[in-house]
Amino acid sequence: MTVLQQAKLAKQSATAVAVASTKDKNQALAMIAETLDENRATILAANKADLAAARESGMASGMLDRLTLTNERISGMIDGVREVVALEDPIGEFLSMSTRPNGLQIGRKRVPLGVIAIIYEARPNVTVDAAVLCLKAGNTVVLRGGKEAFQTNQALMGVMRDALDKSPISKDALHLVQDTSRESANELMGLVGLIDVLIPRGGAGLIRTVVENAKVPVIETGTGMCHVYVDKAADLEMAANIVQNAKCSRPSVCNAAETLLVHKDVAETFLPLVKPLLDEYEVELRGGACTRQVLGDCVVPLTDEDFDTEHYDYILNIRIVDSLETALAHIRDHGTGHSECIVTESYTDAQRFLNEVDAAAVYVNASTRFTDGGMFGLGAEIGISTQKMHARGPMGLRELTSTKFVIYGNGQVR
Amino acid sequence: MTVLQQAKLAKQSATAVAVASTKDKNQALAMIAETLDENRATILAANKADLAAARESGMASGMLDRLTLTNERISGMIDGVREVVALEDPIGEFLSMSTRPNGLQIGRKRVPLGVIAIIYEARPNVTVDAAVLCLKAGNTVVLRGGKEAFQTNQALMGVMRDALDKSPISKDALHLVQDTSRESANELMGLVGLIDVLIPRGGAGLIRTVVENAKVPVIETGTGMCHVYVDKAADLEMAANIVQNAKCSRPSVCNAAETLLVHKDVAETFLPLVKPLLDEYEVELRGGACTRQVLGDCVVPLTDEDFDTEHYDYILNIRIVDSLETALAHIRDHGTGHSECIVTESYTDAQRFLNEVDAAAVYVNASTRFTDGGMFGLGAEIGISTQKMHARGPMGLRELTSTKFVIYGNGQVR
Repeated sequence: MTVLQQAKLAKQSATAVAVASTKDKNQALAMIAETLDENRATILAANKADLAAARESGMASGMLDRLTLTNERISGMIDGVREVVALEDPIGEFLSMSTRPNGLQIGRKRVPLGVIAIIYEARPNVTVDAAVLCLKAGNTVVLRGGKEAFQTNQALMGVMRDALDKSPISKDALHLVQDTSRESANELMGLVGLIDVLIPRGGAGLIRTVVENAKVPVIETGTGMCHVYVDKAADLEMAANIVQNAKCSRPSVCNAAETLLVHKDVAETFLPLVKPLLDEYEVELRGGACTRQVLGDCVVPLTDEDFDTEHYDYILNIRIVDSLETALAHIRDHGTGHSECIVTESYTDAQRFLNEVDAAAVYVNASTRFTDGGMFGLGAEIGISTQKMHARGPMGLRELTSTKFVIYGNGQVR
Repeated sequence: MTVLQQAKLAKQSATAVAVASTKDKNQALAMIAETLDENRATILAANKADLAAARESGMASGMLDRLTLTNERISGMIDGVREVVALEDPIGEFLSMSTRPNGLQIGRKRVPLGVIAIIYEARPNVTVDAAVLCLKAGNTVVLRGGKEAFQTNQALMGVMRDALDKSPISKDALHLVQDTSRESANELMGLVGLIDVLIPRGGAGLIRTVVENAKVPVIETGTGMCHVYVDKAADLEMAANIVQNAKCSRPSVCNAAETLLVHKDVAETFLPLVKPLLDEYEVELRGGACTRQVLGDCVVPLTDEDFDTEHYDYILNIRIVDSLETALAHIRDHGTGHSECIVTESYTDAQRFLNEVDAAAVYVNASTRFTDGGMFGLGAEIGISTQKMHARGPMGLRELTSTKFVIYGNGQVR
């Protein structure tokens, strides 16, 4: 099937899925979990083929790891599906209902978005995670994964569609684009009227391409140039722990810190305090003349690009700033609106930072690594929005919905 | 100033406006109302110049009327500004606040979108209406009006910026693009990182151009191909009144009905009943063979395009359908997701219509003409969204906002 045919089927089946009961949707998801469990061998065999091809093409080890499925990882996927079954269904909730002076009863009801398309890269777990979250919120789905994971994705999609065939939901609710060329992505981005929302999940390059080219509505996700600012009034020990955690607990993810801003009044005390904690993880420090004056030649000279580069690695930019204002200006100039943190004991500085920093998540005295649907109590997430329209920050089930006005009259005219 | 310079100034001033108090914002809006009142002569003179040029270029009378300002219409604008002063400020509201098991206090706070750009056509009242609504919600604004109204818009913008100069809000919060060529609109659509949301207000052509070309996030507004379906179980007298009102009370607006769908079992009774009500307004009826069989040769034969054309005029398409299913399918194929109505006494048919029709506003037994921010109790509106992302239906102050997660910690790491 072509992308267009798949999108049309997804659109046609959208009404039935939108009005499906929670019970029917949960039954379909439970069947997906069960069928994944029964078909582990098929899935692992497909993944083995993808891995062999990837190794042959010289894929880097980090990427190979992301592509790899094991029995344990499949169990993780299945657990994930069962967690989504347990989440409350957002569809049908009334955000408000009131009677107008003319007697019209006007309610605002939560409804699905419709057809959600997702363009993503190597990780095959997205295929299952994204499909079940969208489905639980009453949407139909067109997935377009990377070519490296195609055989795995194909196996996972085959299993999920077989599961739907044994459930009250039509298998036409789920589609995997068969063509992994650039053309299929471009085609998907242009299907105005068929795709209600397109979510790109992946690196900065993919996201830029989608933002530049899509004609359908897009939710931008995931680029994270996150900062920790250590104020002159910080508890320096707390600050050191937060910096270590924000940088080192998982540097490859978008909520990891890339740049440390330190107030000049505490730089000479703080930097030598945090250095051994970063040395534990062999973090490469990059800084300008002032930083090198404090920490010495172990600091690599910083280039202009560093402040705008998500290293996603054990590398930390350091800048000594002369005031909170300079820190705020730095974040305004270099941040991507993801997660930003101030460490301070000053009530006024904390409130000013929370108010003035324009980001999805702003922290006082806690690691940026908490920006995550699970950590925020939203349940599973489909990604982290860094735009301000529709959804901002971790997107759970509610962020996969829209609303409609429902009006009960008895003959009113205007 | 160029569009780029204006957008940069709007972005730079966005933080100050975002954190401005309700009192300061209201003071600025009150000053705008007062200054408009004091400068009526300047505004009317500018409008006179636009009107002279428009008449010379042969502008149609409907368009001339939309372009015309009078003392009374300026009073209407000023009243509108004062109504926005009276509206509750949505900014700062916490949608939720909770303490996580690890002690993190996580709140979701309503914040402005940032910089809002609006591309619109001839009506100069939009210049004031849009500016004050966006400002009240803490946003800065770049307006790009049509060339026909440029001198009027320029005068209105000058007056508003002068007013801001005497208020706590910087005049850099408001900008009117100086170049009304196609290039300036295209430039605005491409300012990723400077424009947070772009709202096109105007005809289908303008909206299509923006959806096709914009790289910044867009909220699609206003195209309204609205239907009234008269069910076999309808109260036919009520149905006739609703059809008359939905078509005739103001045919030039997007919530007016364009197509009447009638169940075959009641067509022979209903059509002769509604016809005299439509004749009062000299409505041209367009229909197929079945309709002509009932109403005779006064019905103009319908062409394929009619079902997808917003006539915005005293013209009504009529189709006789054999079932509710056919009506639902017709609306799915030809509706634009704006406002759709069923007239029926059948509880089951009413509920099915409300659930299955995918539109911003779905009505039982009331005119589609009620789809409006004021009528829905939202206060002033900036437009009617026909997309499902971010906002759907009439957009008031809340729809001009985003949220941010605010996290209070005491040293938490992950």
